[in-house]
Amino acid sequence: MDTDRGHPGEGAEVLCIGSELLLGNILNSNARWLAEALAALGVPHFRQTVVGDNSQRLQETLREASRRCRVLVTTGGLGPTTDDLTTQAMANCFGQPLELREDVLTAIAAHYKTRRQSMPASGRKQALLPKGAVVIPNPTGTAPGMIWEPRPGFVILTFPGVPAELHAMWRQTAVPWFRQQPYGRGVTVSRILRFWGVSESRLAAAAAAELAQTNPTVAPYAGTGEVKLRITACAETSQAAEALIAPTQARLMKLGGSSCYGCDDDSLASVVLNLLMERRQTVATAESCTGGGVAAALTAVPGSSAVVLGGIVAYANAVKHKLLGVFTTDLERHGAVSEPVAKAMAIGARHRLGADWGVAVTGIAGPGGGSASKPVGLVVFAVASAQGAVTVTRRLNSSRGRHWIQAVSVGASLDLLRRQLLGLELENTWG
Amino acid sequence: MDTDRGHPGEGAEVLCIGSELLLGNILNSNARWLAEALAALGVPHFRQTVVGDNSQRLQETLREASRRCRVLVTTGGLGPTTDDLTTQAMANCFGQPLELREDVLTAIAAHYKTRRQSMPASGRKQALLPKGAVVIPNPTGTAPGMIWEPRPGFVILTFPGVPAELHAMWRQTAVPWFRQQPYGRGVTVSRILRFWGVSESRLAAAAAAELAQTNPTVAPYAGTGEVKLRITACAETSQAAEALIAPTQARLMKLGGSSCYGCDDDSLASVVLNLLMERRQTVATAESCTGGGVAAALTAVPGSSAVVLGGIVAYANAVKHKLLGVFTTDLERHGAVSEPVAKAMAIGARHRLGADWGVAVTGIAGPGGGSASKPVGLVVFAVASAQGAVTVTRRLNSSRGRHWIQAVSVGASLDLLRRQLLGLELENTWG
Repeated sequence: MDTDRGHPGEGAEVLCIGSELLLGNILNSNARWLAEALAALGVPHFRQTVVGDNSQRLQETLREASRRCRVLVTTGGLGPTTDDLTTQAMANCFGQPLELREDVLTAIAAHYKTRRQSMPASGRKQALLPKGAVVIPNPTGTAPGMIWEPRPGFVILTFPGVPAELHAMWRQTAVPWFRQQPYGRGVTVSRILRFWGVSESRLAAAAAAELAQTNPTVAPYAGTGEVKLRITACAETSQAAEALIAPTQARLMKLGGSSCYGCDDDSLASVVLNLLMERRQTVATAESCTGGGVAAALTAVPGSSAVVLGGIVAYANAVKHKLLGVFTTDLERHGAVSEPVAKAMAIGARHRLGADWGVAVTGIAGPGGGSASKPVGLVVFAVASAQGAVTVTRRLNSSRGRHWIQAVSVGASLDLLRRQLLGLELENTWG
Repeated sequence: MDTDRGHPGEGAEVLCIGSELLLGNILNSNARWLAEALAALGVPHFRQTVVGDNSQRLQETLREASRRCRVLVTTGGLGPTTDDLTTQAMANCFGQPLELREDVLTAIAAHYKTRRQSMPASGRKQALLPKGAVVIPNPTGTAPGMIWEPRPGFVILTFPGVPAELHAMWRQTAVPWFRQQPYGRGVTVSRILRFWGVSESRLAAAAAAELAQTNPTVAPYAGTGEVKLRITACAETSQAAEALIAPTQARLMKLGGSSCYGCDDDSLASVVLNLLMERRQTVATAESCTGGGVAAALTAVPGSSAVVLGGIVAYANAVKHKLLGVFTTDLERHGAVSEPVAKAMAIGARHRLGADWGVAVTGIAGPGGGSASKPVGLVVFAVASAQGAVTVTRRLNSSRGRHWIQAVSVGASLDLLRRQLLGLELENTWG
């Protein structure tokens, strides 16, 4: 079953240019960002390519793309340095000379002037564009992009590789341009349903009927601790696509039960914060093995200061005792990774910070520190409120490594708090 | 200047298969991981492609790659579900029938057995491979990969899209296989130098001579708050490549001065932790706008428990006063984002947790909470030790958004601690 749709001749491709991508020095976040941006515009997008800072291979790729797609969006290689060769390679590929754009040169000079810097000689290079190209102004940097139709029916849009510049130029110039294009053959709308506490295989088995659908399609994939179901519909309008998605979304949410915590840009942190805001309640954290990750996840959400009072990272046992009031006898008798200690940490955070809710996590993230009775991956969670405290012990897969254990522990502690806020059972039905 | 080298006919390409990548639902971390893995093996790598779960377009891509490269490494589409069509599409593309591998079927059945689950009917699908293909066992999942030479001189290696499975299968089977291949034309070694407190343009201007080199090449790029210089050398052996890198690395480190904090996998957190371990000293954190990010960055490093006692996330002013001993009068007179308060937070963390060092950060991450005198992006850092406390106020670019401000604030606080540990000047020479 094909889950990407549409007609390549009508579609777009993304080409990211930069040797650092081929060397694996950086993640290609631009390709992901552009994929989302194109989907949001309803522009079908069938291929992403990465090539290095190599003129010959770049030109090969341009020729191929010009035969396949209607719009090619490129990132990278627009800078002033010698390994920035995107514009020159495009001009060579399609046999167009570069010409100096006085308006662009003026803008670049102005950019340096406002920073009280003199424009380097290389600045002039960025003002060279192929004849007939339309400038995409760069409001935050020196490298402009262009909209160029080197062949009838094939348009290239170029952007710098710096994400902040790409994003600003896209919103300011590319979005209005795309809206004027004849991409009226339909739009693609995608919805992500997010689940915590259920395995991908169990969820896929339960959703077998939906996974077999064709419009909307449903595809499962696993995140870090969470599982997602992507519902994708194609229709004439986004409203019609949403109407196609709605019944499938309702069925899948029902099927996921309490494991379905949100959709699209929701995170466990944002969902928990919204529940707390609705009740005008506050939360405090007490963390050992996550080392501040729970507090950081909560405070990463704008507006979190309304409900997050703060927290205590009690990495050392002395800190658990001194700042959270955990009894030394409990630490000695049960060990730092135990339900009595996790419970005392959650209660301590709640009392010491004067919060309505206290959430605590203590465990062994590894690679060291494990034992036969307390192996790496053993993590205990606790949530305390005026109604008392609950604890959950989990054995996480130690082979996934420290970062995975820490990340999943952050999620699991937030999910425990979410379930308490919603009055849900501790262990969800999926076990 | 071309900064990627070698002969495509000899090289490898990476093909990642999955509609979720084209929809922008996930970052393509597999492409980056494989790029690093190929570079480490000295396998030249010239192109990365992403296509969706679409048999026709996948086959087009396979045909193109078979004409361009010698080895194609693919990820994704090996699962049991109907949108996993990689193996079938490859068999169709090169006109080979699929045959059931009893040994693979047995392994898959065993995988379910150990989990006390019955093998789903779909399990059988994963045991179908093209005639002549060699199985790449999957030690951690059900989906096996394959090494298949559908055409003389063109080899395909397939892997699942699940990173943990890809990594295990790569190390167990792909690495030994690559080592036996005639990729003796030389190896590529890459070194990343990491700088904090210097802009990319200033660093690039100072390193103009090195940026013009051809072997090793030097390429600059900006991270989140940090700047990196990538030195890449090609030689017959990795030793010879290292010898080419050494003098350039030494010049660039000298040139970066105190801004150069490490290389390759170093992070500001790992560098700071190593300095503390050398001195057998401990650290405690006090965080407001970073909300636990500094503590989380430190505790993300294995072994950090030896030096990180913990920290206090003092998001609310009451918590700054109650848990860190910040005077209410200072909070009222100077505001929470001020040098007196940052200083009191660092000293408070140091005293309350009994650490040798205290590091504090307080600021306005936005989007709300800013004012004319205290705009979004204003962040104050403090480090306290037995020798007293130092503070630094920075005005971060508010247009970069909350996450960027929080991430750069984490780095800046760790860099301030690093400079104090090394007895360096507060403001580096780059300003």
